[in-house]
Amino acid sequence: MTTPSRGSDRTEAIMRTTLELGQEIGYAKLSIEAIAARAGAGKHTIYRRWPSKGALLLDSLLSLHESSLDYPDTGDLVADLRTQIHAAVDLLGKPPFGPLYRALVGEAQSNPLVAAALNERFITPQAALTVARLTTARDQGQLSPAFDLTLAMAILSGPLYFQLLITQEPLTHDYVDRVLNALFSGMAKPS
Amino acid sequence: MTTPSRGSDRTEAIMRTTLELGQEIGYAKLSIEAIAARAGAGKHTIYRRWPSKGALLLDSLLSLHESSLDYPDTGDLVADLRTQIHAAVDLLGKPPFGPLYRALVGEAQSNPLVAAALNERFITPQAALTVARLTTARDQGQLSPAFDLTLAMAILSGPLYFQLLITQEPLTHDYVDRVLNALFSGMAKPS
Repeated sequence: MTTPSRGSDRTEAIMRTTLELGQEIGYAKLSIEAIAARAGAGKHTIYRRWPSKGALLLDSLLSLHESSLDYPDTGDLVADLRTQIHAAVDLLGKPPFGPLYRALVGEAQSNPLVAAALNERFITPQAALTVARLTTARDQGQLSPAFDLTLAMAILSGPLYFQLLITQEPLTHDYVDRVLNALFSGMAKPS
Repeated sequence: MTTPSRGSDRTEAIMRTTLELGQEIGYAKLSIEAIAARAGAGKHTIYRRWPSKGALLLDSLLSLHESSLDYPDTGDLVADLRTQIHAAVDLLGKPPFGPLYRALVGEAQSNPLVAAALNERFITPQAALTVARLTTARDQGQLSPAFDLTLAMAILSGPLYFQLLITQEPLTHDYVDRVLNALFSGMAKPS
């Protein structure tokens, strides 16, 4: 039997190894066997906790990301969105997070369990925080009362995913600022 | 030696087989060998034209999609965007295009040649047509003169890719209409 603390240390070592090895050899070549060998853990120990390498990668990435899910609230909606999304693209822009997150989304296209876990563990909580920040802003008169909050994540993060997954051009602070500017101004000619 | 017409028939048969077999067994299990066997073509014939199964799938999907790249121009920008994007989501919403296009984008996350081909053959031409339609509309006073046309594809298609690749919820005409409404209205409180 292991104590909770030793189990937690081992979990952290496995997740850290997943990110290190993933960064070195890429997600396609990553295997549970190789992670187990380098982390000094049994293969069955890993499979008991994670059903697939996609599930293990998701947890490993989330361990890096948790603190940056939060939105600041300085009272200025656009400034706070900029701060939060700049932090997100800083994470996405550098290894190991960026390339491995792209690989995870790739895996989610053929693996429904990974897709479900990605949404449940990452997208849904992030959407809830986004909607909460936008609701506060709407109550303070900083957001169009007509803006459909159920679209918040799609509208705000869609252009980032397009750049990350489709054009694969760098995600920069400047890009974020231009997108926010376009979304707040709107496409309609001012009347 | 084959005549151009026989070569073209064979090319079409290979692409049709790729879509049929891809729909039956999924992209992950699809192989050039299996496509060659069912299409009655030599494996080397396929490899001479397409360096990978991702490249072959891209061409096969484009053969379904080419006509729906065009935008109508009725003089009403929002109506024309709706018509074009409704047609795109009709294609994405049903097999074989939808699941195989998702698989192709997944493949593009680990295969730079597929990513480059996707952009060169599909995204860039589509962006050019989108910008052309928006430029006409701007000249006619139907688009905010401040709207950054270099962001057109990211802003208009980003929310669709988010739904297709991340939440994996159905892409409906209603969703398209709500996104267009939000993008044209903008997020800022009307002054």
